[in-house]
Amino acid sequence: MAVLSAPKGTRDFYPEDMALRRHIFCSWRRTCRRYGFEEFDAPLFEHLELYTRKSGDEIERQLYTFTDKGGRDMALRPEMTPSLARMAAAKGQALKRPVRWFSIPRLFRYEKMQRGRLREFFQLNMDILGVAEKTADADLIAAVVGMMTDLGLESQDFSVLISSRDLLEQLFRSVGVPAERLGAVYQTLDKKYKVAPEVFEKMLVDSVGDSVRAARLRKILSAETLDQAVAEAPDVPAAEDLRTLLDLLDSYGMRDYVRFDIGIVRGLAYYTGIVFEVFDKQRSLRAVAGGGRYDRLVALYGGADTPAVGFAAGDVVLGELLKNKGIVPLLEPRSTTFVVSVDKDVTLAVEITQLLRNAGVSAEYSLRQVAVGKQLKQANAARCTFVVFAGGEEEGSGRVKLKDMRSGEERVTDVANLARTIGELE
Amino acid sequence: MAVLSAPKGTRDFYPEDMALRRHIFCSWRRTCRRYGFEEFDAPLFEHLELYTRKSGDEIERQLYTFTDKGGRDMALRPEMTPSLARMAAAKGQALKRPVRWFSIPRLFRYEKMQRGRLREFFQLNMDILGVAEKTADADLIAAVVGMMTDLGLESQDFSVLISSRDLLEQLFRSVGVPAERLGAVYQTLDKKYKVAPEVFEKMLVDSVGDSVRAARLRKILSAETLDQAVAEAPDVPAAEDLRTLLDLLDSYGMRDYVRFDIGIVRGLAYYTGIVFEVFDKQRSLRAVAGGGRYDRLVALYGGADTPAVGFAAGDVVLGELLKNKGIVPLLEPRSTTFVVSVDKDVTLAVEITQLLRNAGVSAEYSLRQVAVGKQLKQANAARCTFVVFAGGEEEGSGRVKLKDMRSGEERVTDVANLARTIGELE
Repeated sequence: MAVLSAPKGTRDFYPEDMALRRHIFCSWRRTCRRYGFEEFDAPLFEHLELYTRKSGDEIERQLYTFTDKGGRDMALRPEMTPSLARMAAAKGQALKRPVRWFSIPRLFRYEKMQRGRLREFFQLNMDILGVAEKTADADLIAAVVGMMTDLGLESQDFSVLISSRDLLEQLFRSVGVPAERLGAVYQTLDKKYKVAPEVFEKMLVDSVGDSVRAARLRKILSAETLDQAVAEAPDVPAAEDLRTLLDLLDSYGMRDYVRFDIGIVRGLAYYTGIVFEVFDKQRSLRAVAGGGRYDRLVALYGGADTPAVGFAAGDVVLGELLKNKGIVPLLEPRSTTFVVSVDKDVTLAVEITQLLRNAGVSAEYSLRQVAVGKQLKQANAARCTFVVFAGGEEEGSGRVKLKDMRSGEERVTDVANLARTIGELE
Repeated sequence: MAVLSAPKGTRDFYPEDMALRRHIFCSWRRTCRRYGFEEFDAPLFEHLELYTRKSGDEIERQLYTFTDKGGRDMALRPEMTPSLARMAAAKGQALKRPVRWFSIPRLFRYEKMQRGRLREFFQLNMDILGVAEKTADADLIAAVVGMMTDLGLESQDFSVLISSRDLLEQLFRSVGVPAERLGAVYQTLDKKYKVAPEVFEKMLVDSVGDSVRAARLRKILSAETLDQAVAEAPDVPAAEDLRTLLDLLDSYGMRDYVRFDIGIVRGLAYYTGIVFEVFDKQRSLRAVAGGGRYDRLVALYGGADTPAVGFAAGDVVLGELLKNKGIVPLLEPRSTTFVVSVDKDVTLAVEITQLLRNAGVSAEYSLRQVAVGKQLKQANAARCTFVVFAGGEEEGSGRVKLKDMRSGEERVTDVANLARTIGELE
């Protein structure tokens, strides 16, 4: 019969692929722990209503939906924030604030296939709930930088670009963009780095409604600093908020990693204040991470008013960045030790293998009775660091030959000391 | 608006729930590494055909199926083995044997809700491909015992019950059960411990076709040892195979954990040889784990003939067992250290928090400017082990007060030594 393939846009993770995924996830967990975040998770599918209640996003058209055998409309989760907001709303006042949660969800979006985009992918999500102050935004931005540097990426590799929906709204209103067109302008702005300049130009005119407003808007959007952006409207209150945040980030030691960028707006409709995205310095890839404030989402799901800020980082773009920089992990040994059976009878090999395992040393032996040479090939294929020769000359002596495959060095050691010897050499 | 709930049969994992899940997963990964297995994963949904090709199982009626936006029929994975077989088949000869793989898949079955069963759950899967010899069965059974004992369960808590489809087939044929009824008898036998004795009795007569055969079968099924089971047909070859396996398991030191049980058959149709299940000693819960040989599955997916043996252990029953025994982990500190800001200005608290984080010590501070007493409450809620008082008397001295929350002991230390001091005390 024909061999079936994995569904389009999904990945098979053979051990060599899994090594990179585990490297990223383990690093993510270490960062989260160090920054004081606790892990949570939610079901992989949710009631469809969880995603349709907050309407308007592109994400809704990309849902994997299905009807379960009980006739309920469900969707595979395309993002984690709605589940987080639902869970926070369900706990109500019992939830001690601030909430500092992270999760590593598997997510699904039926998207057009392109570089850095898959239909099934993973994210790190970090969120702080219950704090309206800019300290929460700053703490999360520090955490996203920590996440990147923990993976070996440096300030010359990436930037956190920061803006604010409040600032954009205040500036756009100051040049005459009507309130009802703000959403459309945000959507256009979010495409700035994703489409050609002339396409962006046309989208901008379309979204603001006329070319005079578009020209004034273009001037604001060409600002390279916060001061330039507010040059013609220096009294917008959101500018002061952003300055507070940037000052705070200086105290965090983040000056080399972050900067203001008026082109950052985020695609999702639920953002309310500070927004930020992480890009590689060459800007050759999609955003590695993005986030911001979403102060109204928990209430939308029936919870109390809860100020909130969070970010998500995807595994696909991050993996590409690590590969480009050549900082991906080597495939580790499948077992530290391979026990070669010199004799036909495997009993001694079994006993030594199990002795090592019981002492905490990872070990395997040849499950098939084959010649010593073939067993050594298996040891190589399993990338074992040590080989133990069970039986042969040493049979019955309580001693075995141990070979360090890195140096080729051999020694004879008591079986009773084998695990300790390997532990010391490793 | 109304608060939405998680879909029926799924779980929200708040941090306190996640602690147990992480405890189990981390222990699983340690066991697998020690026994020489490498991690892999596959997509969370697969082409529906992957599950319908091998027909006949109850599992097929429990599938969560959907049609994607491209019109393809898909299903959420209800078990991992078909994905494993598909991936092995796809690699063909490039896959070095033996394959020793594990995975921790999230799985979905639309089942009737009952104790120890959920519609969304996790499993540990361990598999060895490419070895027809009983050593592979033994190595896997040793690994399932290792998985249980690594979690703190002992030989008085659980047993691995072992039988063989070959043995059952040979014995059943010897008492006149026709070949075409074997499948039905296996299905009945799999229900032995799941239904009342009189129901089982009736099912047995129905499945073999008449009460004479049923009586002979009943006698075989009442055997408590392998010798008793084969008393009337001592020359069945599968009995020798089972003896070889049980002897091998003695060499592994597994005598106290394993025993023959003629009532074990497994529900899935694809098993071909040795089958086994792990039960708590009181038999108060469903099987914790189950597995066996499936030598024909990889070929069914278009691969070369590949002998294979594997097992799966579920997180739900295992979690109940750990809870019953009282060996579940305590919730760890969210942060090791809480930095209290004695002054209004948080700058010093930010700097010390970040200094600790950069030195590898997990830390947080109060993101809201509240009184010291309220900050200490936050430190308690975050279960922090240490509190650092930033500012106040020590302001400008380069020294801070450090309090160990376990003993209540306080000391004053240089900020420069803070991370080291905490590391030593922790």
